[in-house]
Amino acid sequence: MVCQRGWNHDSSRTVPLQYFLSNAVERRFFVFPELKVIMTETTQSPAKVSLDTIVALAKRRGFVFPTSAIYGGLANSYDYGPVGVQLLKNIKDLWWKEFINGRTDMVGLDSQILLHPRTWEASGHVTAFNDPLVEDLKTNKRYRADHLIKNWVAQKLEANPEDSDWKDFSVENLKLEEMGQFLTEHKILSPDGNQLSAPKAFNLLFETAIGTVAGAKSKVYLRGETAQGIFSNFKHVVDTSRVKLPFGIGQIGKSFRNEITTGQFVFRTLEFEQAEIEYFFDPETSDWNAIMKDWKAGMWQFVTKTLGIKAENLRWRQHTDKERSHYSKDTYDLDFKFPFGWSELWGVAYRTDYDLKQHIQFSGESLEYLDPNTGRKFVPHVIEPAVGINRMFLMVLTDAYRFDTTKNRVVLELNPKLAPYQVAVFPLVKNKPELSAKAESIFQTLRQTYRTAWDDRGNIGKRYLSQDEIGTPYCITVDYQTLEDDTVTLRDRSTAEQTRVKLTELESQLAAMVR
Amino acid sequence: MVCQRGWNHDSSRTVPLQYFLSNAVERRFFVFPELKVIMTETTQSPAKVSLDTIVALAKRRGFVFPTSAIYGGLANSYDYGPVGVQLLKNIKDLWWKEFINGRTDMVGLDSQILLHPRTWEASGHVTAFNDPLVEDLKTNKRYRADHLIKNWVAQKLEANPEDSDWKDFSVENLKLEEMGQFLTEHKILSPDGNQLSAPKAFNLLFETAIGTVAGAKSKVYLRGETAQGIFSNFKHVVDTSRVKLPFGIGQIGKSFRNEITTGQFVFRTLEFEQAEIEYFFDPETSDWNAIMKDWKAGMWQFVTKTLGIKAENLRWRQHTDKERSHYSKDTYDLDFKFPFGWSELWGVAYRTDYDLKQHIQFSGESLEYLDPNTGRKFVPHVIEPAVGINRMFLMVLTDAYRFDTTKNRVVLELNPKLAPYQVAVFPLVKNKPELSAKAESIFQTLRQTYRTAWDDRGNIGKRYLSQDEIGTPYCITVDYQTLEDDTVTLRDRSTAEQTRVKLTELESQLAAMVR
Repeated sequence: MVCQRGWNHDSSRTVPLQYFLSNAVERRFFVFPELKVIMTETTQSPAKVSLDTIVALAKRRGFVFPTSAIYGGLANSYDYGPVGVQLLKNIKDLWWKEFINGRTDMVGLDSQILLHPRTWEASGHVTAFNDPLVEDLKTNKRYRADHLIKNWVAQKLEANPEDSDWKDFSVENLKLEEMGQFLTEHKILSPDGNQLSAPKAFNLLFETAIGTVAGAKSKVYLRGETAQGIFSNFKHVVDTSRVKLPFGIGQIGKSFRNEITTGQFVFRTLEFEQAEIEYFFDPETSDWNAIMKDWKAGMWQFVTKTLGIKAENLRWRQHTDKERSHYSKDTYDLDFKFPFGWSELWGVAYRTDYDLKQHIQFSGESLEYLDPNTGRKFVPHVIEPAVGINRMFLMVLTDAYRFDTTKNRVVLELNPKLAPYQVAVFPLVKNKPELSAKAESIFQTLRQTYRTAWDDRGNIGKRYLSQDEIGTPYCITVDYQTLEDDTVTLRDRSTAEQTRVKLTELESQLAAMVR
Repeated sequence: MVCQRGWNHDSSRTVPLQYFLSNAVERRFFVFPELKVIMTETTQSPAKVSLDTIVALAKRRGFVFPTSAIYGGLANSYDYGPVGVQLLKNIKDLWWKEFINGRTDMVGLDSQILLHPRTWEASGHVTAFNDPLVEDLKTNKRYRADHLIKNWVAQKLEANPEDSDWKDFSVENLKLEEMGQFLTEHKILSPDGNQLSAPKAFNLLFETAIGTVAGAKSKVYLRGETAQGIFSNFKHVVDTSRVKLPFGIGQIGKSFRNEITTGQFVFRTLEFEQAEIEYFFDPETSDWNAIMKDWKAGMWQFVTKTLGIKAENLRWRQHTDKERSHYSKDTYDLDFKFPFGWSELWGVAYRTDYDLKQHIQFSGESLEYLDPNTGRKFVPHVIEPAVGINRMFLMVLTDAYRFDTTKNRVVLELNPKLAPYQVAVFPLVKNKPELSAKAESIFQTLRQTYRTAWDDRGNIGKRYLSQDEIGTPYCITVDYQTLEDDTVTLRDRSTAEQTRVKLTELESQLAAMVR
């Protein structure tokens, strides 16, 4: 993602939550007596679901848990539970299959989280990867100065949308001292109404030390982005793989940013997972506009077709000259309509030869590419499509969430490729060995091909609702009739309709639906 | 993996490398004029390959690169290149499919690397996760005292295998002070022949701090193992998933240990990837011996059948009473014959209820399980099969390596499920559009199903050798005859034999071979 950024990216992170639900959704075991979902005016539009609803569902069904909850938790940290980790894995696997395995011009990589500290001097993170923080002088709570200013301006504009003083205001233009002046001049207080300290720049890289003897420790950083591991391996990849320009290197992995976050669940966390691509090309023979267009098409295709996200929840936003990094010639965000508003899902930036040149300068190594046809040596340019996997996860949950008022149930309308389980098998009751044996044999067959759940607890209705909430597209129930005529009940998650299917036709029918 | 360990685990890590090759293998681009591989006496036995040979191959072909090489590297740190990351992913995916998706009694999890620091107090890592280090007083190089002692004893035994003074000696019995006495008494020097400092205990947890304001930082650790994220989520999983005892929770993820390592490539690194399972059961109704046996069978099955590792390179080793942790009732290592000797690949330990009880004590939370049938509440016991993914990776490379003297080539005899590419497609020459178009259409079809490589550079022989070295089981060449009769050349990696295959039969033939 973007480095040498100031505090300009992702303007929406302090947008207040817009929809709140009753506490009923917090209750477990299918009790939603007063579940209230604000629907949009037309049936075509997606349900606007609150973040609270998503968080409650995620916790209730084992998608996401707060990290270290038994010890009181850790700020903005989340673990992925049994169905969450599978959804996360499915997203990553589809990304990998489409962008790494599925293209002849791409290869994968997996660099370490701990890299040589010079890496981050070259990238600019050590000097310029900062947040402008202010402290509430009474509570000692910390806030981002730019966020407080942005909120203050947003309130002014809410009162008077045409206010010429603020219409074109952009906090990105303010330096650290100017933010301090702005806060003082406009008497801006903390959310608790207290005086604020002057803003200070705080570096976002986590530090640690390699070496096991006190005094001889050497400082290293947890990577702030996966991209730099790609740049520092550029030459290795060129020398050992049979790649030629234009080609890209992609990797998925954890990154860390010591940020003040504002409670947007897994949208922004200190520890998060990225999927970044650096696509290298010769600026003399390739048209960067065409490559940018190609990647935008690839990103759009992945989100709408592969993940199945509704197009009306997506938009492109071109970065303004002000917010774009100085070395970038063009940058776009693919935004998703999150419960807290439009926010960046996936960015694609033309970064020129900035990164490789920085590493050449700081390492003294040649990272030039030798054109095998012309013999010309040069530093390739790069276009970077970079996405946060955890944001994709939150997008998928948000987009898939539906409250079915006719049946009083929550349904996750997940693409079958993404669903943690693609099919569930139930024996009608648990204490009839013939039913269990028959169901077990169907289960064993299906799980060769599909991610298959097994459930023999409680009544069938509750089992259906349980699978609806984790997005399982199909449920198969083995009942007494099965023992007579070798048919089962096949129940569709989205329609809740049940049909009798012959066992001999079950696999082909599933294959057609689940692919 | 085992926590509250002393310095007792993995006795083999300082065994000196036994086989060395000429420098010829370091040269790139298919030049191995003097490659010397020490073969064992029978053709049934695996080739004994040196670690140097594996390292050179890994670097030459893009499996593994030294991390941050352009900045002089980082001690014992490695990045995975284009084919390495795919092999790593294939191992992880097979583990996940077999142990998480493939069993009804298992669920997955993905907890953070940064956990609440109390986690590591409860687990014992903060107080007891130490290495005994000594320093060369002249060079300031650091060594593990237990390793120096072990090597010294090994030399004594090499001279006289029946030496009654040392035959039953175990360094695991020595306390820190006793190690110091031992070094002094026997006048043991550093490998450079210098005096050593007294041993000190050094904690292996990496420290970092959450919070962006200096002075208000709060110390956290990078996890030393993934297991503790499972224990701290135990209650979440029970409450939200429809699991019942016995059941297991598995996760794959990075862990960090600030160790002195001894240059065994990816076998032991500061940053590494684990796949750990905690299998919970009721000790009153389940027989732990039977569960242990079941997991040993599962581990064996995975390594020999799923990964295809030769059984003669594997052995079970039961931990002695001395080396086992005090709370463990039984522990086995599945050892692999690495180039540097037999070493632990995968451990399985019966850890009783130790971990959950520690977390109950330190968190004050109840982590008891309520039996739905009997209403009895109790703390489950646990059996832990824990493996390092990077060790599996090194095992796979070592086991698959073969030098084919008849054809003067290196072949990686990878299981087709593991191979980075399962098939490669070549147009015979690159500048004939008809050949390229035909090859491209075959490539596009195959890559829907298989990980498919494309190569149109250089002569066919070199392309074959290149695929042999990364373990691609099959190569397909499109030549002039293809344009006439719709047949292609199908070349087998292991035999190097080529057959003509009709395009109409290509997919079914591949399906039979690659599955």
